[in-house]
Formats: sequence, structure tokens, C-alpha cells
Amino acid sequence: MTEIAAVLHALGDPVRLEMVGRLADRGEPQPCGALYDDIAKSTASYHFRLLREAGLIEQYAEGGRTLNLLARAEADRRAPGVLESVLAARSARAARTDGGQ
Amino acid sequence: MTEIAAVLHALGDPVRLEMVGRLADRGEPQPCGALYDDIAKSTASYHFRLLREAGLIEQYAEGGRTLNLLARAEADRRAPGVLESVLAARSARAARTDGGQ
Repeated sequence: MTEIAAVLHALGDPVRLEMVGRLADRGEPQPCGALYDDIAKSTASYHFRLLREAGLIEQYAEGGRTLNLLARAEADRRAPGVLESVLAARSARAARTDGGQ
Repeated sequence: MTEIAAVLHALGDPVRLEMVGRLADRGEPQPCGALYDDIAKSTASYHFRLLREAGLIEQYAEGGRTLNLLARAEADRRAPGVLESVLAARSARAARTDGGQ
């Protein structure tokens, strides 16, 4: 139970949900800076760490920068089906409100 | 986006996930005390309030006690499909680990 709650907790923040949503939208590894706006780098690092610990993203170094990718399999192991449903809800809401609310 | 994050945040705590899970398992309105163990009543009240504000439960008075029910329609309006997928993940995990981990 606690593992599912940890995944939900990680997704249950607007900044982190946006990070995960952008990774899903773009479909390929992204540098950290592409995944957030208007927050300090140290704040972003905290959010990335939380996402990593919840099994939602993986990070690796390439050419001197950190790339992020969605850890769909690991997320699905911890909370089967949840990440996909959250991404679908996000898309549905974005479509309905023409860009989010 | 923030409404989906609020639903996820409300579900992203082991105590609240258990409350919602028991409501789903039992399929009918439940008194507050049936939905948690081993926490203070004031702590439980805080968790119930957060679930209510996220649109996940409704509460009403009957015969001098408060009954809780799952607000499936409202949850679905705020985060389409998410509550159902979380409940399914919870059941899947409970089955796999024979009682949750």
C-alpha cells in the first residue's frame, strides 16, 4: 500500500505532475531545464529526486548534462496502471480546458 | 492541472488511501471509525477534511453519527479515471502480496 501512496504523493504536486506530463508529451529523454518554468534549480532538484525515488523517472548523464526519462515499467510495477491513467486524465483536462486550468 | 494534482495529493498518503480503499471495498456508507486504525480522532478528522476538499468523499449526518461515502462522480470530474485506476492498483497489489505491503 505504501508504495502506491508514494507514487501518488510524487504525482500529487503541480510542479512534479507537469514534469512527468512534459516527459510523456515529448516521448524522449529531456534535459532537466526543459521540464519546468519559474522555479529555482534547487527546488527543481528536490522535485526530481522525489520523482526518482518514487520510481517515476530515471536520470542519466550524457554529454555533460542530465537527461530524464519516464520510468513507465517501474511505475507500473509499483502502482499498476496509475501513471497511464494520470497522464490520460491530464490530457483529457488539457483538451477540455484548452490548455489546462 | 492543479485539480488533478489535488486529487493525487489526497490519495497519496497511506492513511487516506486506506480510508478510500475501505469505502470502496465495503460498497456502502461507513462511519468514520470504520475507516482507520491506530490514529487519533483529530488526525483522522484532518484526513477526512482533505479527502472531502479533494472531492473524493462526501460526509453526512445520520442518527447522530457521520457517515462517509465515496464521491466517485465528483472525483471523476476532477481527475477522470484516476480514482478507479488507483482502487484497481490497490486491489492488484493486495492480491499479489496477500494483504498489502
